[in-house]
Amino acid sequence: MNTLQLVPLLEPIRPQMEQVECLLHETLAKAEEPLSSMLCRSLGSGKRLRPALVILSGGVFVSSTPPFHTLAVAVEMLHAATLIHDDLVDEAPLRRGHKTLHTIWPAGAVVLAGDVLMAQAAWLVADLERPRILKVFADTLCTTCAGEIKQILANEGKQGGRKDYYRRIGAKTASLFAASTEMAGILAEAGEPQIAALRRFGRELGMAFQIVDDVLDFIGDEARLGKPAGSDLRQGLITLPTLCYLERVEDDTPVHAVLSGQRDEEHVRAAIEAVCSSEAIETALAEAWTHVRRSQEALTILPDNASRQLLCSLAEYAVERRR
Amino acid sequence: MNTLQLVPLLEPIRPQMEQVECLLHETLAKAEEPLSSMLCRSLGSGKRLRPALVILSGGVFVSSTPPFHTLAVAVEMLHAATLIHDDLVDEAPLRRGHKTLHTIWPAGAVVLAGDVLMAQAAWLVADLERPRILKVFADTLCTTCAGEIKQILANEGKQGGRKDYYRRIGAKTASLFAASTEMAGILAEAGEPQIAALRRFGRELGMAFQIVDDVLDFIGDEARLGKPAGSDLRQGLITLPTLCYLERVEDDTPVHAVLSGQRDEEHVRAAIEAVCSSEAIETALAEAWTHVRRSQEALTILPDNASRQLLCSLAEYAVERRR
Repeated sequence: MNTLQLVPLLEPIRPQMEQVECLLHETLAKAEEPLSSMLCRSLGSGKRLRPALVILSGGVFVSSTPPFHTLAVAVEMLHAATLIHDDLVDEAPLRRGHKTLHTIWPAGAVVLAGDVLMAQAAWLVADLERPRILKVFADTLCTTCAGEIKQILANEGKQGGRKDYYRRIGAKTASLFAASTEMAGILAEAGEPQIAALRRFGRELGMAFQIVDDVLDFIGDEARLGKPAGSDLRQGLITLPTLCYLERVEDDTPVHAVLSGQRDEEHVRAAIEAVCSSEAIETALAEAWTHVRRSQEALTILPDNASRQLLCSLAEYAVERRR
Repeated sequence: MNTLQLVPLLEPIRPQMEQVECLLHETLAKAEEPLSSMLCRSLGSGKRLRPALVILSGGVFVSSTPPFHTLAVAVEMLHAATLIHDDLVDEAPLRRGHKTLHTIWPAGAVVLAGDVLMAQAAWLVADLERPRILKVFADTLCTTCAGEIKQILANEGKQGGRKDYYRRIGAKTASLFAASTEMAGILAEAGEPQIAALRRFGRELGMAFQIVDDVLDFIGDEARLGKPAGSDLRQGLITLPTLCYLERVEDDTPVHAVLSGQRDEEHVRAAIEAVCSSEAIETALAEAWTHVRRSQEALTILPDNASRQLLCSLAEYAVERRR
């Protein structure tokens, strides 16, 4: 419990978040060892933003009750399951400063550990006895995975422009943010326009959040990120800062060299340097702010109270954060 | 549709099984290409035993309706998802005579394709609006995956005796058979003792089915199995025929040689030959028959009708089949 490191602005909901944490660890403990310890390790840190979105979105309408804690845990577990599978797919060595599961366990066990998390998450959602929520949940998992598959199968050279980038981050990140806020609205028995507004809020926030993640991959420091800077570029993955950079320069830049396959440390460092010293970072952050504003606009039809204000602040935090 | 190759004794339920097949393909078609085609290919053949168990278990109580078709499809998709992940884990080159998905696609895409199937299956179960069914479904996925993880992490040398073997096939196969019949009973609103009887029937049938699968891995011919004979032994996996064999022999047999790591073709062939020419096959089949009898006993408290009789025959087919 003492490992729960909340974003400072979430301190007002610490009691609920601690109950969520408790239920999360109770659920993970149901698996047999050594699986249980491994799952706890994988889920041990993290900002718990998605659970907080559930608690706050519900809190706009009703006070937090056990079903919201259940939903919050399910969302975090689904998130963790997709991270475990993604890290395996990407062969990422580190996540949140810890060795990734697949560097310790055989790949097969990692695949199945992710499956167990998904199954436990689905069980929790079933426990809410609200089939509509489960459908949103299942749809989200489909969207996220299908999006990743498309990315894997796409020829790297064929990575498109912004449209492709937005489709990709929509599937990868924004879909689960949108589902978290939408499901909380359904659970709170909010009206349909309000559920739709929560969904839109979550989606726009998710877009902003992922853009900033992609910016931090360039400008963040390794200690805070918990992984080496420039990971995306090193993998040949084109994100918004790179897109913004490429739109403004001529051929033959260090970035082109990396994208055409020269991925040694020297070329990668030169490419990161080039992007960071251009206007690309500012341009990408401006786009993130556009999504934050849109997310905040979506909130205006909801009852104005402390939870709504926290959601509004959380949207700004998504861009202002440094890790 | 013309690819639906039913076990002959299931001909009486062909109309329902064709509706199941239709819904299955409709569901798979919802994924984007190339995922959709790949999933159709992975699910194209197969005996559809688990869907048949759903239809027949429901049929004991009520006539088959769309919700039973939905459940049948969900069960087949969950089964396919676990097969896709398992084949990846085992690096199996063939399944049902076709190249396995991971021999065609990058491993990452295969992991996620399995995830999509799980998500689609969960969506279908959610559509039934029966949370209890979804809990059985989620529990089953947990059990199956946790069982496989234990197997992967266990040191090969530490593979135990029968108790370990039964635990393993219980998690790997019998749990989904049991879930199929139990969920159908819940959907049919059968009484609790009858739901429990259906579960027991499914579990015992699943045990018999897996034992026979393990026997066929020794005595079946490659053309019918759709994979090379002796796959288990070649992977160092001890199944019931090997256990029965080892219980009766002294040290230094060809089987010991394979289990201690000599897995070239010559040693594997000698080991298969040794097991097949011993009493091990008969002993293992006798154990399978014990489970068939137990499964049939479980049926006796159910209403006696055509569906129950088909379930009873299906149990015998599980042992008599040759593929």
